[in-house]
Amino acid sequence: MKKADVVVIGGSAGGIPAAIGCRRRYPEKSVILIRKEEQVLIPCGIPYIFGTLGSPERNLIPDTVLENNGIELIKGKAEEIDRDRKAVSIIGGDTVSYDKLILATGSLPLILPIPGIDKENVFAIEKDVKYLKNMLDVINKAKDIVVIGGGFIGAEFADECKKNRDNNVTIVEMLPHCLQLAFDDELCIEAEKVLTERGIKILSNKTVEAILGDKQVSKVRLSSGQELKADVVIVGVGAIPNTELAEKAGLRIGTSTKAILVDRYQRTTEDPNIFACGDCVAKVSFFSGKPTRIMLASIATGEARIAAANLFETRYLGLGGVGVFSTKLGDLSLGAAGLIERQAREDGYNIIVGESTAVNRHPGGMPGAVSTKVKLMFSKDNGVMVGGEASGGVCVGELANVISACVQHRMTAYEVSLFQMGTHPALTTSPMLYQIVNAAEIAVGKL
Amino acid sequence: MKKADVVVIGGSAGGIPAAIGCRRRYPEKSVILIRKEEQVLIPCGIPYIFGTLGSPERNLIPDTVLENNGIELIKGKAEEIDRDRKAVSIIGGDTVSYDKLILATGSLPLILPIPGIDKENVFAIEKDVKYLKNMLDVINKAKDIVVIGGGFIGAEFADECKKNRDNNVTIVEMLPHCLQLAFDDELCIEAEKVLTERGIKILSNKTVEAILGDKQVSKVRLSSGQELKADVVIVGVGAIPNTELAEKAGLRIGTSTKAILVDRYQRTTEDPNIFACGDCVAKVSFFSGKPTRIMLASIATGEARIAAANLFETRYLGLGGVGVFSTKLGDLSLGAAGLIERQAREDGYNIIVGESTAVNRHPGGMPGAVSTKVKLMFSKDNGVMVGGEASGGVCVGELANVISACVQHRMTAYEVSLFQMGTHPALTTSPMLYQIVNAAEIAVGKL
Repeated sequence: MKKADVVVIGGSAGGIPAAIGCRRRYPEKSVILIRKEEQVLIPCGIPYIFGTLGSPERNLIPDTVLENNGIELIKGKAEEIDRDRKAVSIIGGDTVSYDKLILATGSLPLILPIPGIDKENVFAIEKDVKYLKNMLDVINKAKDIVVIGGGFIGAEFADECKKNRDNNVTIVEMLPHCLQLAFDDELCIEAEKVLTERGIKILSNKTVEAILGDKQVSKVRLSSGQELKADVVIVGVGAIPNTELAEKAGLRIGTSTKAILVDRYQRTTEDPNIFACGDCVAKVSFFSGKPTRIMLASIATGEARIAAANLFETRYLGLGGVGVFSTKLGDLSLGAAGLIERQAREDGYNIIVGESTAVNRHPGGMPGAVSTKVKLMFSKDNGVMVGGEASGGVCVGELANVISACVQHRMTAYEVSLFQMGTHPALTTSPMLYQIVNAAEIAVGKL
Repeated sequence: MKKADVVVIGGSAGGIPAAIGCRRRYPEKSVILIRKEEQVLIPCGIPYIFGTLGSPERNLIPDTVLENNGIELIKGKAEEIDRDRKAVSIIGGDTVSYDKLILATGSLPLILPIPGIDKENVFAIEKDVKYLKNMLDVINKAKDIVVIGGGFIGAEFADECKKNRDNNVTIVEMLPHCLQLAFDDELCIEAEKVLTERGIKILSNKTVEAILGDKQVSKVRLSSGQELKADVVIVGVGAIPNTELAEKAGLRIGTSTKAILVDRYQRTTEDPNIFACGDCVAKVSFFSGKPTRIMLASIATGEARIAAANLFETRYLGLGGVGVFSTKLGDLSLGAAGLIERQAREDGYNIIVGESTAVNRHPGGMPGAVSTKVKLMFSKDNGVMVGGEASGGVCVGELANVISACVQHRMTAYEVSLFQMGTHPALTTSPMLYQIVNAAEIAVGKL
């Protein structure tokens, strides 16, 4: 029987920062991390294996991050948690006892309950090197690729599968638009335009009824009756929290989220010695406090930092998920932070919108200049910014983070319009046209 | 005699947003903008005329921004303000009466009082198309270029003058490092390394004693006795507020700043009907409230928005200058917001520093990946973030703005370490390594 002050189960975006956070906050404590994977993939990098990167090996998190932080790694699948004895048993291996335990067991791809889903060359997005290697081989040879689901994963997969290949890529999305859960319609339309220009076919408002073929997939049949040729099907319809271990240990699971329930300290509601973070954990919205189903590596790392800090002393309080996203499709980058307009209206806000578009360099002849659009949402009642969206060049990734900083501080339109930004010809929009400030100033005029 | 509700004097980074802001806030008011230039240059873009852009015409602000906002333009030099009659006379032209006046007369290049400064081919940075056109012609033919001053303007000019030309470019800087007023030493050294690798010679800790030659410059003599060959000398040693008109009108000028004194509403201390913004105006620090000499187009636009909003009703309150900068030299981008470590210590802060370096994509094999460094400064006493610096790829421009948002909201290390950022493989650092959050978490451990 092994022993550590802290045991972390899970070795990805939740587990690694949880283990490192613990070593940072409580350097005198020993930490063991148990994970089932031989090698760990960067979760958000998985679509890029299929185009930009070219192999799963180019998308790994090196184990040195654990070694460098004095964290012991055990490769093996945790079988059971004995809460009375405070010990984790590993399949075919040792038992490890803990003082504090952090669960970071992540999520599993959602499998659609449709006929033929188990045929060969139908792939979900498994976080496993061997699986992805095989998937890459099959995609390299495929002529007709059907992607089920036009969310981030589906859209990014479609975009990557099209790179340097002569093939037909089709996205089947049940909602009216791709990326509709993340962005307002106008941004979705912008994204769809880019995908279409890249030669990707988008079938929206469509559901898949069956996957056809003998052993291997050959066609996808939609509910409309339409049939699509398919050598490969990629299913990117979301993920479900991996709570098997937690459930077996008698920890509570949320009814709507199907995820492990924790308090704002990331402590499980039943066991003060067990914390949890990442995709396996139920989240609440920064805005309403209601359960929310956002699963993001960035949120996982934030929860991991909180869990780690609170292990032996309550130090950190989670604020709920703001929801900050970004992606890049073709040459278009898109980002959002907080509530998009549609969500804000659904939540009952009386919303004022400020919008501003300008080139992201000044003058427009500077290299890398791309038109960049910002849309900000404010509550008409108190002027507080509840969210924003951006589209344009690669710095939209950090622009979404500027918006996030304003949202997290519940800045008002008035305050955002006074935001002091730095600008430079080769790096940003001109100070006169800086979109966040202009959009806020326009919103102030409407309040 | 012409007449407008609002008259703005100055047509650049202060005047334009002041005029537009007025039209936005008080759409029923008429606005006349008086400016002396035939065409207006983007001030920060001027160095790029000499390399990246290739001509002053590619760095203009089109007059359509005025037309589109219903602003009347008068080209002419304002001669005098008659405060009793509330009218501005224009040299060789009309008199324009106002209800409210905004002064945005900008700055003039500082001329060094050294022998030979008036020789031919010695250039200051005049914001004038003809002047810059001649300067470009001379630089195109020059073999030996000496840049006096290694601040932003000097460093950017040196970098641009070296582009696509076979010449010798030397920077003479009186301080130990280039960019020393903007960045801590380690960033200055990084910048100097880039400039040196680009073939630019840097002579620091050196002052210029005289500019030699017959009619034209041929040499620059340093105080050390060293002489540098020079076909061209570019003087980039700073700017002084252009307050001639204000002084003639009896408005008060600050003793240390030599700039027009205004209150936090951007209203001149003597005349409630006259506002002022931009380089011609005295500023105070966001931190200490003490006078500060930062001159930035971004600050000018912020002051302009405040001035415009407050013309007929007090609506906006300035917070003092945070100081947010960025620049790009070679392929290295540098940015800062708030106090750098040196300034914070000079101001008496007991400072905790958190630093974090990581590649700005994930995995590191994604296109555009560059190592990006963030350094954050916090007060040890209350944990509040007082500033930060970054260096790396082009998104450092927006990264400095994320830092600025945190500083302006006086976020603590604790809060910044919980900052919810969005991340994406093609756009940002990985969530585990996101530098701002990691640097803050490291700082929390030291508090």
